[in-house]
Amino acid sequence: MALVFDHETLGQRVLFGTGLAQQNLTAEVARLGAQTVMVIAAAYEGEIAATVTAGITAAVRYDDVVQHVPIEKAELARKVALDTGVDLLVCVGGGSTTGLAKAIAMTTGIPIVAVPTTYAGSEATNVWGLTEGARKTTGVDNRVLPRTVIYDAALTYSLPAGLSVASGLNALAHCIDSMWAPRTDPINQALAAEGIRALASGLRGVNADGQDAAGREQTLYGAYLAAVAFASAGSGMHHKICHVLGGTYNLPHAQTHATVLSYVTAFNAPFAPEAATRIAQAFDSTDAVTGLNALRTDLDAPKALRDYGFEEADIPEAASIILPLIPASNPRPVTDAAIQKLLRAAWAGDTPIFED
Amino acid sequence: MALVFDHETLGQRVLFGTGLAQQNLTAEVARLGAQTVMVIAAAYEGEIAATVTAGITAAVRYDDVVQHVPIEKAELARKVALDTGVDLLVCVGGGSTTGLAKAIAMTTGIPIVAVPTTYAGSEATNVWGLTEGARKTTGVDNRVLPRTVIYDAALTYSLPAGLSVASGLNALAHCIDSMWAPRTDPINQALAAEGIRALASGLRGVNADGQDAAGREQTLYGAYLAAVAFASAGSGMHHKICHVLGGTYNLPHAQTHATVLSYVTAFNAPFAPEAATRIAQAFDSTDAVTGLNALRTDLDAPKALRDYGFEEADIPEAASIILPLIPASNPRPVTDAAIQKLLRAAWAGDTPIFED
Repeated sequence: MALVFDHETLGQRVLFGTGLAQQNLTAEVARLGAQTVMVIAAAYEGEIAATVTAGITAAVRYDDVVQHVPIEKAELARKVALDTGVDLLVCVGGGSTTGLAKAIAMTTGIPIVAVPTTYAGSEATNVWGLTEGARKTTGVDNRVLPRTVIYDAALTYSLPAGLSVASGLNALAHCIDSMWAPRTDPINQALAAEGIRALASGLRGVNADGQDAAGREQTLYGAYLAAVAFASAGSGMHHKICHVLGGTYNLPHAQTHATVLSYVTAFNAPFAPEAATRIAQAFDSTDAVTGLNALRTDLDAPKALRDYGFEEADIPEAASIILPLIPASNPRPVTDAAIQKLLRAAWAGDTPIFED
Repeated sequence: MALVFDHETLGQRVLFGTGLAQQNLTAEVARLGAQTVMVIAAAYEGEIAATVTAGITAAVRYDDVVQHVPIEKAELARKVALDTGVDLLVCVGGGSTTGLAKAIAMTTGIPIVAVPTTYAGSEATNVWGLTEGARKTTGVDNRVLPRTVIYDAALTYSLPAGLSVASGLNALAHCIDSMWAPRTDPINQALAAEGIRALASGLRGVNADGQDAAGREQTLYGAYLAAVAFASAGSGMHHKICHVLGGTYNLPHAQTHATVLSYVTAFNAPFAPEAATRIAQAFDSTDAVTGLNALRTDLDAPKALRDYGFEEADIPEAASIILPLIPASNPRPVTDAAIQKLLRAAWAGDTPIFED
């Protein structure tokens, strides 16, 4: 098949090292020549942030961080940044903290150095999100892409192992769905495969011992790659299904992703042989689905949507909502009957088998 | 082993498509809003350049392209660009053409859109090179990194198959050496592995038929990845050896790389198990050296340095020059005796065997 793609590689420096966040941040702020730094961290992460930023001078320390970045909170923070003449934003925290820094960068152009403490991945993308009332708006703007990301697995030790595994499986879903998403290309696929490799090894480590350094490092590294690949490739079939199940039927996010992923992989893999080979190799398995399910078994991952509030009776309606959302570029043609079959298997927790 | 790295991802847009260069260039110049374009192409590529740039308006067409970018030629071209008020450089050609555009960008900051016609890879790096008299200076500057690269495998059809294979093997050496170069990290390794995968498939296609579109595409794509990985990871043991053999003993570039590569791989692989697994998987082989040598056999690649003017008597001296150049980070400790053994095997074309 002819190789045709349009790939925008986002320029960003990544400094990775366990226990090195303070040292790397100090050096990076000096390298960037910043004079007036605004440190953003939620109050409940104040201690971590104080340690990480101990080597730099903060002109402002800002902790009014709220989930989903309400627009009025963004405007307050922007005003503080402008009034203080801030020339560098340093955010220490998860997706909402990075999100607030991005909201400031979006209108002011002030560069960001991000120090993530979770596997959310927002720090590696140029995607911003704001909420106004109940309405969430997202967009893409290279100004919100952090200039530098400082990864330190030690900052993730306080994430409980169970939550880490759930979050890591979500990152894994980003990697696998990137393989057949609308803007996928071989570069995204190679990075996604590397993400799968890292997450498969890292999640086994974290699951066995939440303080396992190598496991935390590989999971954090994998979550970074998942964000890079997914932001570039877009949402594929898996995410369309999960968004409907979460949005319309209120199923829990992590469990839905963990369950649906193996069904979508089984459905698409025979029609995406190159992607399937990449996934299989990344799992060090002979087969994409076998490799994925071996990991799910090791992690004791959720198995059936019926255990999380999905009703068999809702399957036909859910399929009818999902069908028009499936990208036309999905490697396997999708029908209403196919989605119903997939959802029924995922509901029951049956072995995912689709005729090739 | 702890995961510690510092990776600078260079931001760049890549538009890839066979037969699409003219269309992609026209759209990209419009997207960038350029008003005064300087088209740079060597006289002997004037026809290709005319076709590729047929959809854009060139304020200047510049063809004074000389190998290795002599500084006086760079200064002339810079003057033309500034005098004309150029706001975009479009270069169509190989390494020297891209090099001249980079020389202009370096002092003026004018952005570049590069349309490569060879597998040189300069378009994907922030490395510039200039020569003053016989002295070559190189450096790194993000201003010389082309903003956009437009790859069109049809532009490489006129490269003879033999030269293409030699050039592709050189790119393969960049990929493999990136696996254990001083600044290697898992991101470089993943991209280098993807490059090996593409080059192994592409070079077999080009070798069988110089006009094979899929072969040309994969080779061009692999050469791009080789440049990205190598520019980030730096020169490893392989390139240090080849530079001495080329510089001191005047051995031909392509043949030296093609021969030495399997010896360095055999030497390092047992001490770099993760890299060896990546290389083996990329070759779709059980073993890095086996996979590489299967490709070399298929391509009828050069086998012995004795066939290219290297003298057995020069081995001790060559080893003494090479030894201090080997990066301290090389996965396997290197001794004078080891280099002599490696060079003797490469000289004779013997099967590369090193005790683990």
